[in-house]
Amino acid sequence: MRIYDIIIKKREGDELTDSEIEYFVNGFTNDQIPDYQISALLMCIYFNGLNMRETVSLTKAMMNSGEIMDLSAIKGIITDKHSTGGVGDTTTIILAPLLASCGVPVAKMSGRGLGHTGGTIDKMESIEGFKTNLSKDEFVENVNKYKIALAGQTGKIAPADKKIYALRDVTATVDQVSLIASSIMSKKLAAGSDAILLDVKFGSGAFMKTQEEAFELAKIMVDIGNDMGRHTKALITNMDEPLGSSVGNALEVREAIRVLRGESGGALLSLSIHLAAEMMIMAKEAEDTKSAMKRLTESIDTRKAYDKFVEFVFAQGGNTDMIKNPELLPVGKYKYEVRSSIEGHVNKIDASMIGQAALIVGAGRENKESKIDPGVGLILHKRVGDHVDKDEILAEIYFNDKSRLDDAVKKVFDAIKISNAKISAGKLILGQVSKDGIERF
Amino acid sequence: MRIYDIIIKKREGDELTDSEIEYFVNGFTNDQIPDYQISALLMCIYFNGLNMRETVSLTKAMMNSGEIMDLSAIKGIITDKHSTGGVGDTTTIILAPLLASCGVPVAKMSGRGLGHTGGTIDKMESIEGFKTNLSKDEFVENVNKYKIALAGQTGKIAPADKKIYALRDVTATVDQVSLIASSIMSKKLAAGSDAILLDVKFGSGAFMKTQEEAFELAKIMVDIGNDMGRHTKALITNMDEPLGSSVGNALEVREAIRVLRGESGGALLSLSIHLAAEMMIMAKEAEDTKSAMKRLTESIDTRKAYDKFVEFVFAQGGNTDMIKNPELLPVGKYKYEVRSSIEGHVNKIDASMIGQAALIVGAGRENKESKIDPGVGLILHKRVGDHVDKDEILAEIYFNDKSRLDDAVKKVFDAIKISNAKISAGKLILGQVSKDGIERF
Repeated sequence: MRIYDIIIKKREGDELTDSEIEYFVNGFTNDQIPDYQISALLMCIYFNGLNMRETVSLTKAMMNSGEIMDLSAIKGIITDKHSTGGVGDTTTIILAPLLASCGVPVAKMSGRGLGHTGGTIDKMESIEGFKTNLSKDEFVENVNKYKIALAGQTGKIAPADKKIYALRDVTATVDQVSLIASSIMSKKLAAGSDAILLDVKFGSGAFMKTQEEAFELAKIMVDIGNDMGRHTKALITNMDEPLGSSVGNALEVREAIRVLRGESGGALLSLSIHLAAEMMIMAKEAEDTKSAMKRLTESIDTRKAYDKFVEFVFAQGGNTDMIKNPELLPVGKYKYEVRSSIEGHVNKIDASMIGQAALIVGAGRENKESKIDPGVGLILHKRVGDHVDKDEILAEIYFNDKSRLDDAVKKVFDAIKISNAKISAGKLILGQVSKDGIERF
Repeated sequence: MRIYDIIIKKREGDELTDSEIEYFVNGFTNDQIPDYQISALLMCIYFNGLNMRETVSLTKAMMNSGEIMDLSAIKGIITDKHSTGGVGDTTTIILAPLLASCGVPVAKMSGRGLGHTGGTIDKMESIEGFKTNLSKDEFVENVNKYKIALAGQTGKIAPADKKIYALRDVTATVDQVSLIASSIMSKKLAAGSDAILLDVKFGSGAFMKTQEEAFELAKIMVDIGNDMGRHTKALITNMDEPLGSSVGNALEVREAIRVLRGESGGALLSLSIHLAAEMMIMAKEAEDTKSAMKRLTESIDTRKAYDKFVEFVFAQGGNTDMIKNPELLPVGKYKYEVRSSIEGHVNKIDASMIGQAALIVGAGRENKESKIDPGVGLILHKRVGDHVDKDEILAEIYFNDKSRLDDAVKKVFDAIKISNAKISAGKLILGQVSKDGIERF
């Protein structure tokens, strides 16, 4: 077998065999095939695509390139949730203790943020002492004891995906649905959960810009998961405006605490409950959405979810004072209030630009070497559809480096469109994809 | 400027600016842009093509990446001829002394062969002592004194093309008309001649498999040349069967000697005379094809062309005894006669397979490190259209390594198709392309 012939085959739009796909994935991972040949092949895949069988085959090959987690020592059905990346999306931090408080085991492996989207590990590390590099034994023990554990994804999971993604990132081949789907699913499948719930986002702050693209990606991922014997489902959700009001690591933890205490609602609470309900059903801990949502809501109302969060932070070495008194969490030294120059209604809050504004003040990583600043970011005071008076605060920016402020303010102004027309925010959950097909709500 | 944005632009089918093209050519040549990004870009060019302006821009950038020969010290109009590569194509060795004998200066820079097509430098080096690494001064002096000099192309000519071609060769991006055209023309334009005649071949032994592809390639190359102020013309010629009877380095020199002595005719003589006549007109040494062909034919008939060849070999240090007594030229120790198992007419002699048979016995290079064996190759006894008796000789194979024979014999049998139907050989010269457009004969 020669990589040259595989490139030609895909260049001509022909279907690659399983062994050809394994050959190039393993050859590249083991440094036996040079990157310049793989980048040529990836560009052929960009132009000619992969069919479902090829996509499953690529997912398997990347999954099998590294460690496959064995979580069989954990009691119960382990469900995992994966979001395709958004802005102000703190659902994991909310739904994990929420599910655990209802007795549903949560064994969560998470990544760090890159670009304008945040990562759960970064957010939780803004809590002093919170440890995410748990050993396998600690991880399993914590889930069995507390029903909840969170660990950073190890480098041993799907190294082929890591290497291929790094190459795609610099050769303009990220933006291809089969490559995206296989990249996500190879890691999720290797992470060892019994069931996978995907939160596939679309809109200005998401990777997929349109609903249709999101449904297409969700369908492929759900098919891969179920094809490989893992119960997999997806919700298609709106990421046109940021999900919560806060964007930035410690600021998002604060908002999650308020949601868990029942002090804050809106889209963030709503989506967290919906996702948690789906996971509860997949874990066979509830019969239907209605009863699941009832139990989850009760858990917030009775503070059981919040108490579980405190216990979870304690179990992983975090300073629980910071949860009980969130003002102890890191926060930028300076605050700037972005105020509206006109009166009107908020027509649009571009989530990507808000994410970029947070990135500019240091809440995210511009590249893999960047260090994040846990206390910085921004808090939105308005949502799409809200009325705004002239000079009313649209957002607060928390920052430490004054030289970054002007660019961030400009991004916030660019992101928020105000006009006379009163517009309603888009629907939050657009539909779902399961092995039975696509269902639009 | 970022290579990433240039890849995306071409991936989306947009037109690259001159400065973007210069940026990636120079960046790659200077090792500032990694090969994996250039191979991704080349694949985008494979899929979305380059328009004429981009192709000219790429040619210029590659031409300017290295030395540009200044041949102004040579008297007269310097014409260069380039063939897109064929099998049994010894026209350069015939037309160079032929033109020189008619007073037309020939300052020829040539490459080595790769794959199944031979190179003039390799062929001439089968003559003992023949030197092709002339200094610039020797080269100019020889042309002024003898009207003829032949030198190997230096590594300093178009290094960008060399590097890009090497990458295309392993990433399945060779086969794209704008990339082929710019690769050839960047070297030809840098080689410093005043006028360029292109012999664009099509058929089984050529890079372009169909007439239409050959006309398309020729049109692009002619437009590039004229666009850059160099008088450029192309003939479209048939390479379905090998041009001459001999394939292999010293064997082809022997055939060239016979043609120059007026002892051998056929397609090889005919094409050599046609190409030489065009060059004579481009050099303004003849008014029209008819008078040019008359002078060239006379030069062969009067042995002036042959005498010039002997003088040329002498001038570059070659052993002229080998020209006067061609049996002194190297020849394989063993000979094998391939005989027909049936009676009939030759319907096809696949030039590519014949070239591969010669390659198998050692006449060519399988890769850039291979050494060629000057004496081996094969002599065809038949041409398309000829009658063949059962057991009559189709071809002789000359070889040194017995272990290679079986594969070569198999290739020859595969190449030659014999049937009851009498078929005529295809037309030799199909048309021409000049700045006035395409003319089909």
